[in-house]
Amino acid sequence: MNTFSVTILGSSAAIAARNRGLTAQVLRYGRELFLIDCGEGTQFQLKRYKIPMGHINRIFISHLHGDHFFGLIGLLSTWHLLRRVQALDIYAPAPLEHILKLQLEASGTELNYPLTFYPLSAEIPQLILDHPQLEVSTLPLIHRVPTTGFLFKEKQPPRRINPQTIQHYGVPFQAIESLRMGADFTEPSGKVIPNAELTLPGPESRSYAYCSDTAYNESLIPLIAGSTVLYHEATFMHDRASSAAEKGHSTSVQAATIASKAKVGRLLLGHFSARYEEMGPLLEEAQSIFKESVIVEDGITYNIQ
Amino acid sequence: MNTFSVTILGSSAAIAARNRGLTAQVLRYGRELFLIDCGEGTQFQLKRYKIPMGHINRIFISHLHGDHFFGLIGLLSTWHLLRRVQALDIYAPAPLEHILKLQLEASGTELNYPLTFYPLSAEIPQLILDHPQLEVSTLPLIHRVPTTGFLFKEKQPPRRINPQTIQHYGVPFQAIESLRMGADFTEPSGKVIPNAELTLPGPESRSYAYCSDTAYNESLIPLIAGSTVLYHEATFMHDRASSAAEKGHSTSVQAATIASKAKVGRLLLGHFSARYEEMGPLLEEAQSIFKESVIVEDGITYNIQ
Repeated sequence: MNTFSVTILGSSAAIAARNRGLTAQVLRYGRELFLIDCGEGTQFQLKRYKIPMGHINRIFISHLHGDHFFGLIGLLSTWHLLRRVQALDIYAPAPLEHILKLQLEASGTELNYPLTFYPLSAEIPQLILDHPQLEVSTLPLIHRVPTTGFLFKEKQPPRRINPQTIQHYGVPFQAIESLRMGADFTEPSGKVIPNAELTLPGPESRSYAYCSDTAYNESLIPLIAGSTVLYHEATFMHDRASSAAEKGHSTSVQAATIASKAKVGRLLLGHFSARYEEMGPLLEEAQSIFKESVIVEDGITYNIQ
Repeated sequence: MNTFSVTILGSSAAIAARNRGLTAQVLRYGRELFLIDCGEGTQFQLKRYKIPMGHINRIFISHLHGDHFFGLIGLLSTWHLLRRVQALDIYAPAPLEHILKLQLEASGTELNYPLTFYPLSAEIPQLILDHPQLEVSTLPLIHRVPTTGFLFKEKQPPRRINPQTIQHYGVPFQAIESLRMGADFTEPSGKVIPNAELTLPGPESRSYAYCSDTAYNESLIPLIAGSTVLYHEATFMHDRASSAAEKGHSTSVQAATIASKAKVGRLLLGHFSARYEEMGPLLEEAQSIFKESVIVEDGITYNIQ
């Protein structure tokens, strides 16, 4: 089974504080690395946590608040200085393209590597990447500027062969691959053996949903239902629910409520206001609603399985 | 005498490496702080080195290569989030104004505090700030994009009264202040006593010259002659002189040659290529030409006197 994990590079909201950097995460699938958001200092965090940053070929930016993208131009420049050649794809709100371009122009930089920019719409969920093993879709969020989360979903893994029934029906070797893909088997006599008799369900398709920043948003529930791991912002504790709503943020209780209603496997909580020194109470509030809640820490890798 | 010192926040060229951040310095004069350049991560360095960043009211940006300004937008945003109200002045190449504006617009931010932008010309030396106690002028540098260094020069301190001759000529109390400022004294008889007989020279005017990034540039010499402290970039050792010239940078030998010819008091060397692990050889090369050469370290404060 392919490695599928996420490493937190920054989990503070707005201002870096108490060993928490600004928002950025690295999602690893097999040998590929995806960068999600890129607050100031992300390139230093990549180095600090020994992420092989040359393996990052795709970057996803949720929205254009500075704590989620001010580190991008520095990372692009550093790659240029390190003579990167392989292509880079950026999925981000449209105005970012011009901002990057102006800064490269001001420094007289023509990047050594091809950069393709995919502008995102925050209106409706959209499939934005059809990768051989993964599909990436946007998740429209409720925030003060156009914002999308991202859903990374493993494509349905092949079914597993049932050795007993295969032998019983004398299925030839050449037919095995099509059985894995779900086809029925037709005997030389013309009799059809349904796939379900010859195979067992494959391993479950794993998925990672990233939701930062957003107010409480029930329309996310059908989109992320059954996700293996959900990262959801939890900027505040519940006594600040009205301030959270006003600012387009969530409380830990709200994050846990979404996790519970969407029946996800595990909830990673992050994007904490710098006002909180101690995360215990925030975690307790979440766990009272959804037991499998975790407070993320910078530099830690969480498996998605 | 007013405190006059510089704290190094970053001294690496292009890429942060080995405990050296990207270029930024805080110049302190009395209770005022000036920020010179602002590479990515400057706001974290300010915090790390416990600089009271709310006291910074003026920022000087030498040029628009990313390692000298990518941290500015993050610092402006953090001040906004921390509810800064006092005015901020930025002296920088003109294109930066639009870059900052676009990024603030993209995040829907209207700064809480007034920001005044002073566009710099890199053509000729210009007085850009006439502060009650300091004059700040630009120093045109030779680099790949328009670049200016900065000269911070204390205004001529008042002359000191000579108590013997004052008493001898019976100079009245009301005349003392004008003597300090250099005026002669006229006796009731009409006889003029020259100022030089009544006063002694005041303390020497101190100055700090900041020159990063630049190729070897002898036209700097008259502009920075006699400076108390010169910070000069020394990206390379002298075996890379031709590469330095090509890239618009200096070697440590060239920095020391400028320091020697300009007869400055002390030379601070910085902006080192990430290729150097050990700074000893680079320092030796400089000291063979100018004894009072120092390799700067991040977080260290150097007095200007």
